[in-house]
Amino acid sequence: MAQIKPAVEHGLESLRQQIDIALEEMIASRIDSGEVVELSGRVLLAGGKRLRPIMMCLSYEIAGGQELSKIMPLAMAFEFLHTATLVHDDINDGATHRRGIPTIHETSGLSKAIIAGDWLFVQGYALGGQYNQDIVTNIANCCSSIAVSEFSQIDHIQNLKTSPEDYISIVKGKTAGPFASGCRSAGIVAGANQEQLEALEEFGNEIGIAYQLVDDLLDLLGDDQIGKPRGTDVHEGKMTLPLIHSLTLSHGKNRERLAEIINNFSDELFDELIGLLEKSDSFNYTKILINNHFERAINHLSIFPDCNAKLLLENVAEYATTRKL
Amino acid sequence: MAQIKPAVEHGLESLRQQIDIALEEMIASRIDSGEVVELSGRVLLAGGKRLRPIMMCLSYEIAGGQELSKIMPLAMAFEFLHTATLVHDDINDGATHRRGIPTIHETSGLSKAIIAGDWLFVQGYALGGQYNQDIVTNIANCCSSIAVSEFSQIDHIQNLKTSPEDYISIVKGKTAGPFASGCRSAGIVAGANQEQLEALEEFGNEIGIAYQLVDDLLDLLGDDQIGKPRGTDVHEGKMTLPLIHSLTLSHGKNRERLAEIINNFSDELFDELIGLLEKSDSFNYTKILINNHFERAINHLSIFPDCNAKLLLENVAEYATTRKL
Repeated sequence: MAQIKPAVEHGLESLRQQIDIALEEMIASRIDSGEVVELSGRVLLAGGKRLRPIMMCLSYEIAGGQELSKIMPLAMAFEFLHTATLVHDDINDGATHRRGIPTIHETSGLSKAIIAGDWLFVQGYALGGQYNQDIVTNIANCCSSIAVSEFSQIDHIQNLKTSPEDYISIVKGKTAGPFASGCRSAGIVAGANQEQLEALEEFGNEIGIAYQLVDDLLDLLGDDQIGKPRGTDVHEGKMTLPLIHSLTLSHGKNRERLAEIINNFSDELFDELIGLLEKSDSFNYTKILINNHFERAINHLSIFPDCNAKLLLENVAEYATTRKL
Repeated sequence: MAQIKPAVEHGLESLRQQIDIALEEMIASRIDSGEVVELSGRVLLAGGKRLRPIMMCLSYEIAGGQELSKIMPLAMAFEFLHTATLVHDDINDGATHRRGIPTIHETSGLSKAIIAGDWLFVQGYALGGQYNQDIVTNIANCCSSIAVSEFSQIDHIQNLKTSPEDYISIVKGKTAGPFASGCRSAGIVAGANQEQLEALEEFGNEIGIAYQLVDDLLDLLGDDQIGKPRGTDVHEGKMTLPLIHSLTLSHGKNRERLAEIINNFSDELFDELIGLLEKSDSFNYTKILINNHFERAINHLSIFPDCNAKLLLENVAEYATTRKL
């Protein structure tokens, strides 16, 4: 997977800036409502890669859409909904930081964090509610599935029997669903045909899965500079794919020790954990999976004619599936 | 304020049953999604007076609407959104029971309660998203105002300087807003004219304020059978109108003692608190306010011709503003 080309990066960067400006304007127009908007706006505007709205704008264009202003509210809707789930997830995970700033429950308490998340959800639904019934249904199904998957994820905390199928089912609902639903919805706005809609949905789905796998790897192999500290998932008892793969392949004393480490994790055990995961080649396995999902994603775009939007979409896909690895 | 007439009560009761059936069917159709629907459905279907959806169905009919099936999804939307706010509020209030059953955070933990509330919100927005832009905007504004008011309520916890204006502003956002927005939205679906829409909104607003004042009184004068135990609001530091009124009118030692009791409340102080509130005639004052808001609500209906829906709406209004007092 190659580096993002500078010229194209400029195209993506300018799109990201347009999305940021639209989000900033929306928060500014509501700032009179006081602290709930201030706190919610702070986390919404604290950065974020804007991958979902960028992919949606490009999905709209690849499907023939020509007026960015027609897709922008929907792209923003997905960023609001995404941020809402982050605020609520961070409560559940006890996270102290998000996008480089302290989480709302840390600065302002549990109650305000719950309500701020609710407020972000409302804005997302309001933006999405401007669109037709198909899109409203898409958003509703997507958000319902997030909730269902989050329940499943909680039920699989430190569950050593979590299978790759359990994992994929959770990831499809929680991470890939919003990418898939966003890209498909963007296609609907552009007036795409059925084949194109399915291609966009599958593209989003594959990128979403790959994105989560990258996240899993970053938790173990990343550096602490890029966001959450290494090992956070392990501390939280989250069964990420490298762990699931290693538990499946390891046997005897290695398997026993791995189980022990996962269920009683502390920072001193980090290097030993990495060693065990390397023994089962679980990092390489995860990297191969990422590449497979990336390639499948790109293949789904083959039905669209070559154009600038396609090139940019391929580059976002590449970025989403490589990041700092 | 008279008792609800038996014949009319039957009319309302049958409407309530229709709403219950519609809610039950919706939950049943989603039960395959597992525990999140089970937990959310349990609190949604555990009773509840269905005041908001009942008032919406009747607002639709008084404004000339003739097909209940056209308003039912919107009426259900407001019940879902209402239940979502209850689930999240109960976390923030540390409530152990709701509608006679244990709260979700009590049975299943904080994380699942937050997500179950989110799931209920999604269903509400999905139902509301079937309607036109005016209605979607109404719902979004209503839910945004709930969040803003909840922040304000948190900031006024045990704040002895809370003024009647602060109080009314919080109540308008948190309690009266959904009534007002629901009745107005129902009018929009019925094709009501501007004057009628304003009348319905004001009717909902007045009933909502009266409803909250009744709630305030029930916390102090109600019996423990009808839901939450007496004094719950005082324990939570909520500045209800009887307290605000009494703090304003009392002076000298009574005022000092009242402040002391509110800031260090325990059950043994309950009778003394009631005595102080009686001295300042705060219960009577609250009852007069309830009656004023009730009468203003009824007056707003005067622009509509006499009909069965109007009679029923007056009776719901009467019920909402009397309950067990």
